[in-house]
Amino acid sequence: MRGVPADSSELNGMKDMRILGIDPGLRATGYGVVEFSDGKARIVEAGVIRTGEKQALEARLWEIYTGLRQIMEDTGPEEVVVESLYSNYRHPRTAILMGHARGVAYCVAAEQGINVQSYSATRIKKSLVGTGHATKDQMQRCIGASLGIARLPGPADVADALAVALCHVNVRQHQIAPSGRQRGSRD
Amino acid sequence: MRGVPADSSELNGMKDMRILGIDPGLRATGYGVVEFSDGKARIVEAGVIRTGEKQALEARLWEIYTGLRQIMEDTGPEEVVVESLYSNYRHPRTAILMGHARGVAYCVAAEQGINVQSYSATRIKKSLVGTGHATKDQMQRCIGASLGIARLPGPADVADALAVALCHVNVRQHQIAPSGRQRGSRD
Repeated sequence: MRGVPADSSELNGMKDMRILGIDPGLRATGYGVVEFSDGKARIVEAGVIRTGEKQALEARLWEIYTGLRQIMEDTGPEEVVVESLYSNYRHPRTAILMGHARGVAYCVAAEQGINVQSYSATRIKKSLVGTGHATKDQMQRCIGASLGIARLPGPADVADALAVALCHVNVRQHQIAPSGRQRGSRD
Repeated sequence: MRGVPADSSELNGMKDMRILGIDPGLRATGYGVVEFSDGKARIVEAGVIRTGEKQALEARLWEIYTGLRQIMEDTGPEEVVVESLYSNYRHPRTAILMGHARGVAYCVAAEQGINVQSYSATRIKKSLVGTGHATKDQMQRCIGASLGIARLPGPADVADALAVALCHVNVRQHQIAPSGRQRGSRD
């Protein structure tokens, strides 16, 4: 017979976890570290890594690399989460530059020995608001409510990073009977 | 009065140089290190970094990262060159994944303190064959001739990497009176 778990992290079958959500972009890479413990989610750290447009591309990407590395070293997330790629982009060139930053984010995670999961935008909205067609405002209110804060820190990039992190927290919480559809995907 | 330069690297005003051309790709990243000295270009090292499709994206990108880093450390190029981005891609999703590998290449260069230049496909063809509409076969023959070899090593990715490196060598050689149009661009 198994007694009450001494470790509160196992209460209700919900394990404590620390997740880093990243919204990669060349100009601005949003990030949000969310911790789930004692049945609650809270922000550990969130912000934006901005790079100057006048800098060389290699310098900008290196700034994103070292910035994300510092965040991972400081906050020690167990998993990294990003939004999945989709098929149609209005501005392919901009999307490819976003891809540069996204590739860098994956690389830093690999260097730190952390797996990366990805979720589609629809999946993220559905997980937080209950519908895949949620508005930005609905999303922001749900993120705030999930994290117990009235106002989200910083710009949209931060909200997007927190959203994907919270989506993953939700998925992990419900993974007592995991199914293919519930899990994030590996690109 | 200036005498004959003791350093052969300054003969004819053409400086010795070592250039790393990279053709980034998630499946295969081609690379070619070209050295220009005594008025001749030669291959120092060339090859392909291949990544397994069954591996996680972060592992594949990390393999490209560490592979390129090793090549830079081993061969010590002064500059890194890649093909510029263009505006229209037939398969945006594939192009974004290429962008992941390209971002990683820029990142490694930055880590090693090496600048990155880029040239358009048309510019590369024009530099090697004399026309921006050169065929693959014409390109391969010109690359071989420039490097004094009958057969190019490896697949197309290597030829593309060598081509962009040779283009940069040509540009640098003619940079006694540099002009904006002659120089590569910084993304």
